[in-house]
Amino acid sequence: MTGSEQSNSQQHSVAIVGGSGYAGGEFLRLALGHPYLNVTQVTSERSAGQPVALVHPNLRGRTNLKFRKAAELEEADILVLALPHGSAAKRIAEFEGKARVIVDLSADFRIKDPELYRQYYGEDHPTPERLNEWVYGNPELHREELRGATRIACAGCFATSVILPLYPLLKLGVLLPKDIIATGLVGSSAAGASPTEASHHPERAGSLRVYKPVGHRHTAEAIQELPGRFPLHLTAISTPRVRGILTTIQAWIPDGYSDRDVWAAYREVYASEPFIRIVKVARGIHRYPDPMLLDGTNYCDLGFEMDVDTGRVVLMSAIDNLVKGTAGHAVQSLNIAHGWPERAGLDFAGLHPA
Amino acid sequence: MTGSEQSNSQQHSVAIVGGSGYAGGEFLRLALGHPYLNVTQVTSERSAGQPVALVHPNLRGRTNLKFRKAAELEEADILVLALPHGSAAKRIAEFEGKARVIVDLSADFRIKDPELYRQYYGEDHPTPERLNEWVYGNPELHREELRGATRIACAGCFATSVILPLYPLLKLGVLLPKDIIATGLVGSSAAGASPTEASHHPERAGSLRVYKPVGHRHTAEAIQELPGRFPLHLTAISTPRVRGILTTIQAWIPDGYSDRDVWAAYREVYASEPFIRIVKVARGIHRYPDPMLLDGTNYCDLGFEMDVDTGRVVLMSAIDNLVKGTAGHAVQSLNIAHGWPERAGLDFAGLHPA
Amino acid sequence: MTGSEQSNSQQHSVAIVGGSGYAGGEFLRLALGHPYLNVTQVTSERSAGQPVALVHPNLRGRTNLKFRKAAELEEADILVLALPHGSAAKRIAEFEGKARVIVDLSADFRIKDPELYRQYYGEDHPTPERLNEWVYGNPELHREELRGATRIACAGCFATSVILPLYPLLKLGVLLPKDIIATGLVGSSAAGASPTEASHHPERAGSLRVYKPVGHRHTAEAIQELPGRFPLHLTAISTPRVRGILTTIQAWIPDGYSDRDVWAAYREVYASEPFIRIVKVARGIHRYPDPMLLDGTNYCDLGFEMDVDTGRVVLMSAIDNLVKGTAGHAVQSLNIAHGWPERAGLDFAGLHPA
Amino acid sequence: MTGSEQSNSQQHSVAIVGGSGYAGGEFLRLALGHPYLNVTQVTSERSAGQPVALVHPNLRGRTNLKFRKAAELEEADILVLALPHGSAAKRIAEFEGKARVIVDLSADFRIKDPELYRQYYGEDHPTPERLNEWVYGNPELHREELRGATRIACAGCFATSVILPLYPLLKLGVLLPKDIIATGLVGSSAAGASPTEASHHPERAGSLRVYKPVGHRHTAEAIQELPGRFPLHLTAISTPRVRGILTTIQAWIPDGYSDRDVWAAYREVYASEPFIRIVKVARGIHRYPDPMLLDGTNYCDLGFEMDVDTGRVVLMSAIDNLVKGTAGHAVQSLNIAHGWPERAGLDFAGLHPA
Repeated sequence: MTGSEQSNSQQHSVAIVGGSGYAGGEFLRLALGHPYLNVTQVTSERSAGQPVALVHPNLRGRTNLKFRKAAELEEADILVLALPHGSAAKRIAEFEGKARVIVDLSADFRIKDPELYRQYYGEDHPTPERLNEWVYGNPELHREELRGATRIACAGCFATSVILPLYPLLKLGVLLPKDIIATGLVGSSAAGASPTEASHHPERAGSLRVYKPVGHRHTAEAIQELPGRFPLHLTAISTPRVRGILTTIQAWIPDGYSDRDVWAAYREVYASEPFIRIVKVARGIHRYPDPMLLDGTNYCDLGFEMDVDTGRVVLMSAIDNLVKGTAGHAVQSLNIAHGWPERAGLDFAGLHPA
Repeated sequence: MTGSEQSNSQQHSVAIVGGSGYAGGEFLRLALGHPYLNVTQVTSERSAGQPVALVHPNLRGRTNLKFRKAAELEEADILVLALPHGSAAKRIAEFEGKARVIVDLSADFRIKDPELYRQYYGEDHPTPERLNEWVYGNPELHREELRGATRIACAGCFATSVILPLYPLLKLGVLLPKDIIATGLVGSSAAGASPTEASHHPERAGSLRVYKPVGHRHTAEAIQELPGRFPLHLTAISTPRVRGILTTIQAWIPDGYSDRDVWAAYREVYASEPFIRIVKVARGIHRYPDPMLLDGTNYCDLGFEMDVDTGRVVLMSAIDNLVKGTAGHAVQSLNIAHGWPERAGLDFAGLHPA
Repeated sequence: MTGSEQSNSQQHSVAIVGGSGYAGGEFLRLALGHPYLNVTQVTSERSAGQPVALVHPNLRGRTNLKFRKAAELEEADILVLALPHGSAAKRIAEFEGKARVIVDLSADFRIKDPELYRQYYGEDHPTPERLNEWVYGNPELHREELRGATRIACAGCFATSVILPLYPLLKLGVLLPKDIIATGLVGSSAAGASPTEASHHPERAGSLRVYKPVGHRHTAEAIQELPGRFPLHLTAISTPRVRGILTTIQAWIPDGYSDRDVWAAYREVYASEPFIRIVKVARGIHRYPDPMLLDGTNYCDLGFEMDVDTGRVVLMSAIDNLVKGTAGHAVQSLNIAHGWPERAGLDFAGLHPA
Repeated sequence: MTGSEQSNSQQHSVAIVGGSGYAGGEFLRLALGHPYLNVTQVTSERSAGQPVALVHPNLRGRTNLKFRKAAELEEADILVLALPHGSAAKRIAEFEGKARVIVDLSADFRIKDPELYRQYYGEDHPTPERLNEWVYGNPELHREELRGATRIACAGCFATSVILPLYPLLKLGVLLPKDIIATGLVGSSAAGASPTEASHHPERAGSLRVYKPVGHRHTAEAIQELPGRFPLHLTAISTPRVRGILTTIQAWIPDGYSDRDVWAAYREVYASEPFIRIVKVARGIHRYPDPMLLDGTNYCDLGFEMDVDTGRVVLMSAIDNLVKGTAGHAVQSLNIAHGWPERAGLDFAGLHPA
């Protein structure tokens, strides 16, 4: 069993709260292969008493952990909250006594401005005074703040796929401050582990379904994180993939700028990023980012193409929504927070074909 | 609207009971394009009052029918029961007053022998005395009994995919009376319209899941319908398709027999069948039956291949589980019962590519 | 066999040139079920002498036609050209002697302005003087010109999915003349029947691949057909579906306008269109157009959603690229040209689930 | 870059011959994460001079290796041959001078009996005198022979999925010596990286295609490796998955035996196997082996179910055809041959959902 075999003095104990869902399960998978994390507790109200491998069958033979109830939670070095929207914020006081470091995978503590939160989530935040205690868990934008951080609000998946391609260009003034339009193609795992009519295989397998043409909540994260003021429009479409997000973004560059400036901006900002790859190949079928290649990996692949006649640039990003979009982002943030190698636990290359 | 436009003196009014599921919806689709059927009522307890096109969105602009409750059912010429297992048998007296002709799409009246029913369904049949009133709704085997029939128990989908390839060979003595093994690959629509963990897209999209290695209930139908006594073994596996069943059957032919005898048996028994096609092509990629080609059609494609060294013959059948496996079989049976052209309402050719 | 059975004095003989591809095969499928079309010839250089059902296996038992070489082409009432790009234009003189009515499924005669053609196709049109002889085969925009037409240049699939949602709004001034951005999600059949690395199943099955971020040729058709002048931007992404296009379009409405004006425009222009459906449902999972429901049908489903804060409107269209995007559009155009009922041969409702 | 970073005195240099296909690419992926393997050469005639990451895009940023021609092959500690069928045997003298250890991923050296080879491959083996120099690369059956081995003929994928579930039962006499029937459901990657009509996405995506009902070549491996004499029948069906094989096997146990004996046999033979998992769960949706969970892993999951009335047992196995079916099996064999930890380089747990 990985847990006991790898235990050593450097390891930090981890408790996952709400570990029967996809986000918690993915964090568990990554943590079991991490040299410095030792998961000792996983809670699930519904599955308490059962082996975690019953719910996460990929972990058969990899762990003997059993689910416990949250009421039985004991102290740990790190607490990972993988709860439904709103739960973490309401129960945060309960959790704070359990661990020095808390990572929340939900949207509860991502937004700093209570007004922005209310605009997109349709209700007042239950503990607005605490919002500023949390670092937004996006290593590319907040690496310095993450060092030593004890409260990490892991970035949203669609938000990440919008923020990472835009950030360097907005920061360095390579985009015009006009409408920016992002269209995200999202796999079914993003909607979670609970069966619904929308996730019913006969309804979903062949579907291309616009599920959020306007008003996507992750817009709030992008507004908060991206420099400058500009109209940002998000449309989300569900696809038959299980994992993965492919986001295309339509934006415009100023007169006199060219694709060389886009290249330069990405290089300047992301040159030393371990999980950003610029994918722009002249020929072949893998010319641009494709989530097909990223299942299970922590990469965010970025690409772009110019329409020289109009100044339009099409940005493209691809991630695995459960890794770079959720659990991998969290592990990377924890690595930075603790001063561990940033790639620790995140070295899976991805499959091809897949 | 199809309903009113096509109304004429030859048409029979149809009421579909339990019309919000896949079987009822498929019957409705076929009936709307049928020259002699006029659907006037569709019941659904859950969706009563709503347009049927809300639940069956392929029928937008094709019908103005709304769901009603079963309690509001009025008389009709034909009653089609598309209810969960066990409901039709328990409520049959209630339904018999409503129509002269009743078609049941469930398994309730398929088995004639109450003992066989108990063996496979694990309980006593509620109305065993009525079982013999019903004709087993498989036109290829029971065409004569279906003429003028007023009680039709539509054959099961996996059962149909097993019975049709075996029947001619067993009838004409082309198979040895030893173990016959059928492996069925089944699409997700066979499990119905209600979301479950097993049908959750992230769990099903990539899955090849053995869901019934032994003890499949449709074995009872095959035992009842197939001539002779021999051990019959069924294994059912779910695949990522939505519709369709591909069944491969392993059997053995007697010494001295060859694939010519298999050909001859199929030709003798099925030569004039409108919905049986023998698919055995020497080259190319479409050499054998493939459910890919049958979505929406009433065909049962049959094929076979011999292992001359061992006398083994591999039979193959492909159907659309919702058409030839359910609603199309029902329409074909109704056509025979009423003396209409057997292809009426069933002329869709299927798509390629698909 | 459908061909001979349905033959009657009203029927027109049809020859399909280049009938081994997907477009020609789909036209053949539709024509075999059409009351006034009688396909008597199908050419294929590669498959000459073989039954068409060998290449189009969905037509087994539906036709006895065999492929012949184009050199053996005899006269027919209607010639349908389903040839690779550029072939129809180069060989048009050869074909004109064969039939009074010619339908071209390729892009060769769609564009009226040779300069626009050159801009998007990168070469001079070989017979620019003939471009004006052809009616652009989009019934919703050109119904009057199609009546009695003898040269029909069938509209492109992606172009159709862009033109149909935009046309009423641009015609009636419901959109601002600013950037319009269309993102098309396209199935693999749009790339044709020839295997390539891009169509290799292991490379395509899990892929979300941006294959044309800028410079899509169908932009030319949209520019030609849509009223007004505005920047139009197309991005095309391949998806794991086989058939179907889902296009989302981002546009802006003027101050003082609302979604009621969008509704009104669609109603005014498309109220009596037999194959346009406005899909905008308040709840459930089928709220917007979805190509899942349209395989094999001639529908174009349209939907929209407003972002009231920004004036952005998201238009959505879904079609089957081989039917409303190609062969169905052609049949509908032929129906109009000959004064037949516009729905003739196009009555398939589509499947659900599918 | 992994290559240089991990270089150390324990590492063995590896040359992959024919590295542009799926088997070679998968070996490369595994080797790049292996502590004792250092890939220094990869050959491809077609792609010589290009970065390997262009052909295997999952390896972007993981290696700077470029393809070279086989003619440029230099010496290495280990040579991995990933060539088309027949090439390795014909060119073996050329390769033997290049490395002390050779692993062949093809079928060329798997069969020891030239007569058996001829029966299934339809031709004489070019170098029958060398067949006995090679160890059949199945660690579970040949671990002792693999220690120190310098010629390893990696086991076939479908063969592995048949051999591993049967071996313990046949060895310990838990099966009757009557017909054993194996039905394999295979993903599209098993047919290799070259596009064909059969692999064309529109033809394959929805297909359930029986491609080898009788006469599968891997039968030869199973006959060679499995103890006892009994009729063995293999049927292979292609499915829409990219990776993975699910094999169900129908067999019979002697009177007086029960599923406890099956359990016992598996435990006795496989108790300490690092990559065999017995999957037999009483409830839930993951009761049996499913290739969905194994993409990228070296596991072979085994399961079974009894039909107590007939003595029939249904055995089930699931593998990733490219890992436990090819490259992972090879790495595991190399680990044993060199005395390295058997799990080295093979620790990926697999994804869920996937």
